[in-house]
Amino acid sequence: MFKAKIKMEVLRELVEVISTLVSEVKLSISKDGIGVKAVDPSHVAMLVLDLNKSAFEEFAGEPTEIGVDIEKLKEVLRLSKPGDILDLQFDGGKNRLVIKVGNVTRHMSIVDPAGITDPKVPNVSPPGVATVKMDELRQGIRGSESISDHVTLTLEPEAFTMHSEGETDRVDMRLGKESLPLLESKESVKSMYPLDFFSSMVKSITSSDQVTLHVGNEYPLKIEFDVAGGKGKGRFLLAPRVEED
Amino acid sequence: MFKAKIKMEVLRELVEVISTLVSEVKLSISKDGIGVKAVDPSHVAMLVLDLNKSAFEEFAGEPTEIGVDIEKLKEVLRLSKPGDILDLQFDGGKNRLVIKVGNVTRHMSIVDPAGITDPKVPNVSPPGVATVKMDELRQGIRGSESISDHVTLTLEPEAFTMHSEGETDRVDMRLGKESLPLLESKESVKSMYPLDFFSSMVKSITSSDQVTLHVGNEYPLKIEFDVAGGKGKGRFLLAPRVEED
Amino acid sequence: MFKAKIKMEVLRELVEVISTLVSEVKLSISKDGIGVKAVDPSHVAMLVLDLNKSAFEEFAGEPTEIGVDIEKLKEVLRLSKPGDILDLQFDGGKNRLVIKVGNVTRHMSIVDPAGITDPKVPNVSPPGVATVKMDELRQGIRGSESISDHVTLTLEPEAFTMHSEGETDRVDMRLGKESLPLLESKESVKSMYPLDFFSSMVKSITSSDQVTLHVGNEYPLKIEFDVAGGKGKGRFLLAPRVEED
Repeated sequence: MFKAKIKMEVLRELVEVISTLVSEVKLSISKDGIGVKAVDPSHVAMLVLDLNKSAFEEFAGEPTEIGVDIEKLKEVLRLSKPGDILDLQFDGGKNRLVIKVGNVTRHMSIVDPAGITDPKVPNVSPPGVATVKMDELRQGIRGSESISDHVTLTLEPEAFTMHSEGETDRVDMRLGKESLPLLESKESVKSMYPLDFFSSMVKSITSSDQVTLHVGNEYPLKIEFDVAGGKGKGRFLLAPRVEED
Repeated sequence: MFKAKIKMEVLRELVEVISTLVSEVKLSISKDGIGVKAVDPSHVAMLVLDLNKSAFEEFAGEPTEIGVDIEKLKEVLRLSKPGDILDLQFDGGKNRLVIKVGNVTRHMSIVDPAGITDPKVPNVSPPGVATVKMDELRQGIRGSESISDHVTLTLEPEAFTMHSEGETDRVDMRLGKESLPLLESKESVKSMYPLDFFSSMVKSITSSDQVTLHVGNEYPLKIEFDVAGGKGKGRFLLAPRVEED
Repeated sequence: MFKAKIKMEVLRELVEVISTLVSEVKLSISKDGIGVKAVDPSHVAMLVLDLNKSAFEEFAGEPTEIGVDIEKLKEVLRLSKPGDILDLQFDGGKNRLVIKVGNVTRHMSIVDPAGITDPKVPNVSPPGVATVKMDELRQGIRGSESISDHVTLTLEPEAFTMHSEGETDRVDMRLGKESLPLLESKESVKSMYPLDFFSSMVKSITSSDQVTLHVGNEYPLKIEFDVAGGKGKGRFLLAPRVEED
């Protein structure tokens, strides 16, 4: 059983983050909220997201799983305008998710959750951590995108840097400790990541004005962020590219 | 003879409505204003539009017919900005429509009116009628467009509903009597219409915040709307799709 | 040696004007500022541009030439937002142009200036001259673009006119002496020009609200304009099309 009312802005946040990696997702409903785990088809990137029931206008759930086509959620969101509240109701017997927005009701067939990959989330604890403002991160990403498919993130005791190198040009962004809300890195660590994933992940995070990056040496990246004004938490994991010498 | 000055906003309204169905149109000039009748090439939809001379800033006309290429009117409209007044003058001798906007003058060849289909407008009187707010109608159309090429309109004594059905999903919009400016339907009537025509017709009506729908059982739809702030009247007719069982 | 700080708006102006004609450009640095000469690949159009050092926030230069890929400058501009100041530094030894915007640094390989055409600028002195407001010029160009690939400019003692002629339609714009900041033409002179060049030249001039056109009889057009709020001067030259009879 699952019945909820949610602001369009909150549902849109979820949909943007999830659609970065997958087109179908399994929503794990509990009495405390909704959980999501997703892995992209190439198994390079992963998402773990938990939305507390306090992020909803109304929420009533019993443990169940609902497989949802993300494109259909986008279609429903396009029927709403800022400030609208969407009414979600899952009819387990008929395998239908019924969503109301204004006077419009969509009866949506669901996807068999058994057919959606349930990723095993690795326990990733990179040694360095930096909290970076989204504006600056996005500027650095735009710079890198001009010249390479990869970006190298480095954490040092005094700075966070992004570096990309093309055949003739290179781009660097350096943020000193003084301009970072948080920086903890006893030694220098660095890894190279695929820029397309890193860019679309960062761009999908729309409600947070900062994110926390956990970086190690040739180690998966962990990006932690808030959703729904802190009533939900998300984290992306992204496998490193091994640098060629 | 035809000489007129018209606000760009009013001409733009006409052009948007007409271009929904045809690329060339016959303007029937009289001393009282301009009349338009148009049928789309597949003869599924029809437009009847009358613009009173009071919709113009200045108007002087003797009975004549002018065949116009709608794309050329769009080009002239692109030369204008909101608030501009366009000066139209028809030189019957030279078969030229001369349009001035600002310091620019366009001498436009006209289309032989004899080559433009003059539709015979059927006398359509569906038994049910509902006046619907444009915002709500557009939301219902967006919902239907996600899942089908057709939409079924139903009028009942207490409600107007739109319904579309895809292979797995369906969308319904229900507007109760209390949220309709007008609803008159003694019994339940319904028809299915092609959604592409219905959608582009409704979207082309830009200056009215409501339209009146006349619906019958497997019967042509009539959409009545105002143009030029009530100084003109338009109606679309749309043939029904016979529902398969 | 070359070191400078420049407002993004000023650099963007230069880039827009230059990219109308070429994709690579030679910047001629002196102690007084930057000079540019460029000719399009078909040798139909030419640009001469001089930016005084007062157009920069800071400027220090010794005579040198730097070949730059315009697309790379556009990429750097996309990293900036209005009001940003870009820091440019040329390292002649390493053949690198280093541009900083915010916390991002781009190390840019330069193009060998010897490989960039150095046009010989002809001494063009058409007999007629008119200063025209950009708004009106752009409206006339939009009108012409609907119907032809060419435009004929005419200067008479009392008016400036633009004329374009298609197979069936024609467009004219006439600006009388009273609506022109400057008009000097003892006799009537006219030339026809390729509209694509004329249009993209005029559209690339973004910071000036008027330009000065020098016109003769079947003679190259000279377009003079300000950049950087008058701290720089540019002129385009455009070869005429000989009219067929």
